[in-house]
Amino acid sequence: MKKFINNVDDLLAESLSGFAAAHHDLVNLHLEPNYVYRASKAQNKVALISGGGSGHEPLHAGFVGHGMLDAACPGHVFTSPTPDQMLAAAEAVDSGRGVLFIVKNYAGDVMNFEMAAEMLSCENVTVLTSDDVAVENSTYTTGRRGVAGTVLVEKMVGSLAETGADLAACKALGDKVNFRTGSMGVALTSCTVPAAGRPTFDIGDNELEMGVGIHGEPGRRREAMRSADEIVGDLVYAILEDFRCKDLNVCVGTEALLMINGFAATPLMELYVLYNTARRLLQEAGINVSRSLVGNYTTALDMAGASVTVSLLDDEMTQHWDSPVHTPALRWGR
Amino acid sequence: MKKFINNVDDLLAESLSGFAAAHHDLVNLHLEPNYVYRASKAQNKVALISGGGSGHEPLHAGFVGHGMLDAACPGHVFTSPTPDQMLAAAEAVDSGRGVLFIVKNYAGDVMNFEMAAEMLSCENVTVLTSDDVAVENSTYTTGRRGVAGTVLVEKMVGSLAETGADLAACKALGDKVNFRTGSMGVALTSCTVPAAGRPTFDIGDNELEMGVGIHGEPGRRREAMRSADEIVGDLVYAILEDFRCKDLNVCVGTEALLMINGFAATPLMELYVLYNTARRLLQEAGINVSRSLVGNYTTALDMAGASVTVSLLDDEMTQHWDSPVHTPALRWGR
Repeated sequence: MKKFINNVDDLLAESLSGFAAAHHDLVNLHLEPNYVYRASKAQNKVALISGGGSGHEPLHAGFVGHGMLDAACPGHVFTSPTPDQMLAAAEAVDSGRGVLFIVKNYAGDVMNFEMAAEMLSCENVTVLTSDDVAVENSTYTTGRRGVAGTVLVEKMVGSLAETGADLAACKALGDKVNFRTGSMGVALTSCTVPAAGRPTFDIGDNELEMGVGIHGEPGRRREAMRSADEIVGDLVYAILEDFRCKDLNVCVGTEALLMINGFAATPLMELYVLYNTARRLLQEAGINVSRSLVGNYTTALDMAGASVTVSLLDDEMTQHWDSPVHTPALRWGR
Repeated sequence: MKKFINNVDDLLAESLSGFAAAHHDLVNLHLEPNYVYRASKAQNKVALISGGGSGHEPLHAGFVGHGMLDAACPGHVFTSPTPDQMLAAAEAVDSGRGVLFIVKNYAGDVMNFEMAAEMLSCENVTVLTSDDVAVENSTYTTGRRGVAGTVLVEKMVGSLAETGADLAACKALGDKVNFRTGSMGVALTSCTVPAAGRPTFDIGDNELEMGVGIHGEPGRRREAMRSADEIVGDLVYAILEDFRCKDLNVCVGTEALLMINGFAATPLMELYVLYNTARRLLQEAGINVSRSLVGNYTTALDMAGASVTVSLLDDEMTQHWDSPVHTPALRWGR
C-alpha cells in the first residue's frame, strides 16, 4: 500500500483539517465529534445534514455551503459516523425550521442516523437515498445502495431549502429526486482501505466488476474487460430498465441529467469517453440530456472505475439543479 | 492496461466530443484541426491560447471560458499539438487585440507554437511556463518543465485580459506569475500511455519518484516510500530553496497561493493531507497561505502522485486570482 498518509489513525483528522483550512471561506470544522458546517450559519431555513464513511470525497463535506448542505458528518474510512456527530451538527446548524437528514442506504448509516433522529429535540425527517440499480441487497445494505445520485439529492433539496420551503416540501423533493434517479458503477481495480493495508478484493488484469458498490462490494458479475462503449451500454441499459420497472415513463423529449462519476483513479479523459457514449445512447432512447456533471464526486478511495447516473428531470428538479451553489466541490452562480 | 477506451486512435476525438457536449454552454469544439474555444467569442481583448499534449486534463481545454483561455489546442496523448491547430484557433478567437500563447516549456510544444507564431498574421507574444523546480533539463525539455503552475498563469493573465489590457501588459503579468511560482511533484506509480499499453517506467511497491515530470520523466531521485509529512517537506523546501536562488524574498507576512495538484489517481482525501502539512510548513517559514487550490488540475494520465505549487502573491496577482472565472474546471464569481 502506497498512500500519502502519516499514521492511519490520524488520516481523517489531518485530511479534514487540510480541507477546512483550504476552504475556510466556506466551511468550518468541529473536531470530536467531527462535523463540517457552513462558515456562515444560514437562518430561517430547513437545515440539511448528510454524512457517512470517509473515503468518498468530496462527498459529503465538499458539498457544505450555500445551496447544498448545512453540515456533514464524516465517519472514519468506510465507517458510519456516530450519532453524537449528527446530534452536535444538528444543534449547531438548526435555525428553528427543523433538520433534514440525507442518508445513503447502508445499514450502519441508517441505524446511527435513526438514533440521532430519535435523540434530537427539534423536528426532523430523513431522506434515504437508494439510487444504485445494480443489486437489491449487498454486503452492507438491506435494499438498494445509495451512491452518486445522492449528490443530486443534496443539490436539489439544498436549493429548495434556501427558498424557505418547509420540512415536508424538502422531504418530498428529496424522495422524488431519489425515485427518478438511477446509478450503476463498474470497477477496474479494487480500493485499498488504509487500515487494512491490502486491496478489498482481487480482480484480474483483464477483468472488471460490473455493478460494483462504492466500498468495493460485489456487483452483478465479474467479466472480461471490454470496450468503453460496451461497458457504458450495460450501465445505461440497466438504469433504463430500472426506470421501466418503476413505471417511470421515458418518451421522446424526456429531459435528463447525465452524471459520469469517477471512483477516483480514472482519468478525466476516460470519463469524457464514457460521457460521450452514454449521452448518445440516452439520446437514441429519446432522452434529451439537458444537464451534465462529469468528474470525481462520489469516490471509492483509490478505485479505478466509474458510475453512470441518470436523473429524469422535471421543471422543479431542473430549477433546483440550475440554482446557485457555493461549496468546495460544486460551485456556480452568484 | 485497463482503460475506458474503444480504439486508441479514437480516444482523443471521443473524449473531446464528450467534453464539448457536457460543457456546451461554455465551449465549442472544432475537429481537424482540433481546438476548443469559447461558446461566446470575446470581443476587444487579447486572445489567450494554450495547448499541449492530452493526458493532463482538465489542462488546457477545461480552462477555456470567461476569465481564462479563449482557446486550447489539444495534441494527442503526451504529443505536442501541431501549428495548424494554433493557427486555426488564433484565427477563430482573435478580436483585433492580438494573441497571447501560453506554452509549457517542452521542446515539441515550443517548436510548434513558434512555427504557428511566425505564420500568424496578427500580433502575438508567448509566455513560456517553467515552474517545475525539480530538474534543470529533462527528457523532453531544455530548461525547466512547465507544470501545474501553468494553471495560475492562465487564470491570472486571463483575468487581466478581460479588463482590456494590451498584449505587453498580459505578457508581463504572465512572465511575473511564472517567475514567482514554483512546483515539484512526486509519483507513487507510473502512468500508462494508451498507445504504448504498458507503464512508462517501472517503480517498486515501496518506492517513489521525487521530482517526477507530468509525463513520467525522471525526477531528482528514486527513494523508499516515506510518510506524507516527509514527502511534502522535501517538495516544499525545494520550492523555497528555489525562491531563494531567484532572490525572491520570503519574509514574515509574505502571501502565497498553495496548490496541491493530483496527478489523477490519488484520492482527494490524501491531497488534503498533503495540503495540511504543506500549509503548516509554509506558515512556519513565515508565509501566509491566503489562497488555495486542491484537486486534479494538471494530471499525468493515470499516475498516482501529486505536486505542490507555491506562488508568491502580490496585490495584482491576488486580484486576478480572485476575479470571476467561468470555465468547465474552474468556476467562481458571477
